[in-house]
Amino acid sequence: MTLVTDPTAPRIALIGATGAVGSTLIELIEERGLRYRELYLVASSRSAGRQIPVGGQTHEVRSLEDFDFGLVDIAFFSAGTSVSRAWVPAAVAKGALVIDNTRAYRMDPDTPLVVPQINYAVLDRPPGSGVIANPNCSTIPLVRVLQPVERRWGIRQVVVSTYQAASGQGHQGIEELLEGTEVALRDPDADLPSERFSPPLAFNVVPFVDELQDSGFTLEEQKMVQESRKILGLPDLDVTATCVRVPVVNSHSEAVWVQTQEPVDRAELVGLLSRQTEVTVHDAENRAAFPTPLKAGHPDHVHVGRVRVSPHNPRGFWLWLVSDNLRVGAALNAVQIAEYALARGFLSGGVR
Amino acid sequence: MTLVTDPTAPRIALIGATGAVGSTLIELIEERGLRYRELYLVASSRSAGRQIPVGGQTHEVRSLEDFDFGLVDIAFFSAGTSVSRAWVPAAVAKGALVIDNTRAYRMDPDTPLVVPQINYAVLDRPPGSGVIANPNCSTIPLVRVLQPVERRWGIRQVVVSTYQAASGQGHQGIEELLEGTEVALRDPDADLPSERFSPPLAFNVVPFVDELQDSGFTLEEQKMVQESRKILGLPDLDVTATCVRVPVVNSHSEAVWVQTQEPVDRAELVGLLSRQTEVTVHDAENRAAFPTPLKAGHPDHVHVGRVRVSPHNPRGFWLWLVSDNLRVGAALNAVQIAEYALARGFLSGGVR
Ligand SMILES: NC(=O)c1ccc[n+]([C@@H]2O[C@H](COP(=O)([O-])OP(=O)(O)OC[C@H]3O[C@@H](n4cnc5c(N)ncnc54)[C@H](OP(=O)(O)O)[C@@H]3O)[C@@H](O)[C@H]2O)c1
Ligand SMILES: NC(=O)c1ccc[n+]([C@@H]2O[C@H](COP(=O)([O-])OP(=O)(O)OC[C@H]3O[C@@H](n4cnc5c(N)ncnc54)[C@H](OP(=O)(O)O)[C@@H]3O)[C@@H](O)[C@H]2O)c1
Repeated sequence: MTLVTDPTAPRIALIGATGAVGSTLIELIEERGLRYRELYLVASSRSAGRQIPVGGQTHEVRSLEDFDFGLVDIAFFSAGTSVSRAWVPAAVAKGALVIDNTRAYRMDPDTPLVVPQINYAVLDRPPGSGVIANPNCSTIPLVRVLQPVERRWGIRQVVVSTYQAASGQGHQGIEELLEGTEVALRDPDADLPSERFSPPLAFNVVPFVDELQDSGFTLEEQKMVQESRKILGLPDLDVTATCVRVPVVNSHSEAVWVQTQEPVDRAELVGLLSRQTEVTVHDAENRAAFPTPLKAGHPDHVHVGRVRVSPHNPRGFWLWLVSDNLRVGAALNAVQIAEYALARGFLSGGVR
Repeated sequence: MTLVTDPTAPRIALIGATGAVGSTLIELIEERGLRYRELYLVASSRSAGRQIPVGGQTHEVRSLEDFDFGLVDIAFFSAGTSVSRAWVPAAVAKGALVIDNTRAYRMDPDTPLVVPQINYAVLDRPPGSGVIANPNCSTIPLVRVLQPVERRWGIRQVVVSTYQAASGQGHQGIEELLEGTEVALRDPDADLPSERFSPPLAFNVVPFVDELQDSGFTLEEQKMVQESRKILGLPDLDVTATCVRVPVVNSHSEAVWVQTQEPVDRAELVGLLSRQTEVTVHDAENRAAFPTPLKAGHPDHVHVGRVRVSPHNPRGFWLWLVSDNLRVGAALNAVQIAEYALARGFLSGGVR
């Protein structure tokens, strides 16, 4: 039970509470005992009236259209970019601190883009826009390992290929993968469902995540570049990505090639990454140890494996990253932002 | 019907004829009308006696232990590296030209490593060892696109991440993926079969293909480096790879980042690659067009998509490659080697 009568605990709303990220937020609020005075679950009118238990109490889902943001101190938005664009201004105007999981405000200069383990210091002041942005799910694990490398050896270039799970497209993404897989197992020539993923994802890999940009890169690939630069405070960081969806239910993986200014010692690299907060390096005695989406370990850690310095070039190494995109890549990062903001005692309207 | 009485047509043996590569060889010999005077299908004693139709005739599978290589002019080996190590010397001693699909002879200095579209000229003389080696299935599509790039702009560095299909582990690899997927759909917590892939591949990605080397790289990753250098004749080519198995039945994909000496013009790059033999570039008017393992197009082509020159760096670009690992990556390359060798009129023992 994290419902408290303590008048300093915040009143919280979850916008998109019925979604993949929203339901993970509920899980984490319960697990971590995030204190609240009131908790409002908000979604579209389609879900209004649904009953969802949280911390032993039943909550009725409210429709966003009818919701009064004047009731809350913190509003977590995870209902899509267009919903954030339409409703965040109203929430801020009513004095709520918004923690936004979409890309709507990430690149806004007045909005901090935060990974608490990396750049919490940008939260020393309340955000000018009233919004704190949560980065993209592939960017978060990447910057978690890049920051210590930059500080120790200096980064020259980062080349990333992703292996992203179906849950990155929400509940419907997972359903489409599972349905498509069942259909394909029965009849390999059947037409597969293809609404969330096009072409279909079952027994396939799809090198295309989010919209195409004029540059020929996808928005997901561009986000990894721009967001990494902003979070790390390195506007010229040379990073490039190919983003690929794979037929995995949950947890994103990344193959990351890093070139550094100074030569890297493998043992030192393993030691350095192992000491980062909530990072697990799978190395041990056996270098064949590595994390996979199905079996990585603590769901709240960034998992690192296959640490290999190039035999020809001590300024180049590979990392293999696995992390839960719904937790580490979205909901956990958002909850940790809230925990930090609460610990610093700032909420744009104050806790009334 | 490609069985001919023409006394100049070769006598052919397929070692590993019942396997994934072997049965693809049979398909291709039929499709392409490769002429032979005799065709022997050879496998382990487990398969001896099986009847397999080829070109309208039924062939009985023979056991390798009892097979007399003196009967043949060309022997295709695709029964595993240890089988090639054990039996290729005997085949060569009996005067057969060996085309080997395994890694047993690829790095041998007296054995040419051949991708006919790229370096057929090394076949101007019969091979000193009596063996022509067929490269690894991920290396073949890579060198097919790298050679023209090297010639036009000069290559500084290549960084590859692979997305490799289950069929790379043969018939049993495909079966294990399909069985594991069925089990996982029924019960997500069930133990999945894990003989060919460890950890299991169903709804997972496994960043580990073939054995671990002292360097921390896998043998598959090392093969891509060493074989690319040998085929391209560039002993210092700076190429590095992470090789990953994905839950796809057939066809390997690769995300390839290339850095060049000279700045690259995207339209020229697309034009150049489009003109390569048996390469299809998916570009057209719509840059969102891209190949996937489930839908690429001609099964005998290397498919290229998502051609993107970096907006920050005209000396860097990405390619997405898809090719059928059993055909382009193995059996087709081997058949094309045989076609070339026959056209040049050399066979180590001559056509008797
Ligand atoms: N999945 C990830 O890994 C991930 C990671 C980082 C960020 N994000 C971002 O988080 C957001 C949600 O993603 P998700 O994966 O949780 O998607 P999801 O499972 O599809 O859930 C979408 C949620 O938004 C609600 N919603 C949709 N349209 C709405 C509207 N017009 N008004 C009010 N509520 C509406 C849905 O409510 P109903 O149930 O009523 O339809 C549902 O609660 C997206 O912007 C996504 O880009 C996702
Ligand atoms: N799959 C690919 O994409 C690919 C690509 C390039 C190269 N290769 C290489 O090609 C070889 C075959 O691969 P595959 O995928 O076709 O494997 P596979 O489906 O498992 O087939 C193996 C074949 O080898 C035979 N064999 C196994 N042990 C034998 C023995 N002791 N004596 C005689 N025959 C034996 C098997 O005969 P039985 O049926 O009697 O067991 C079967 O015909 C491997 O070396 C592999 O590395 C594969």
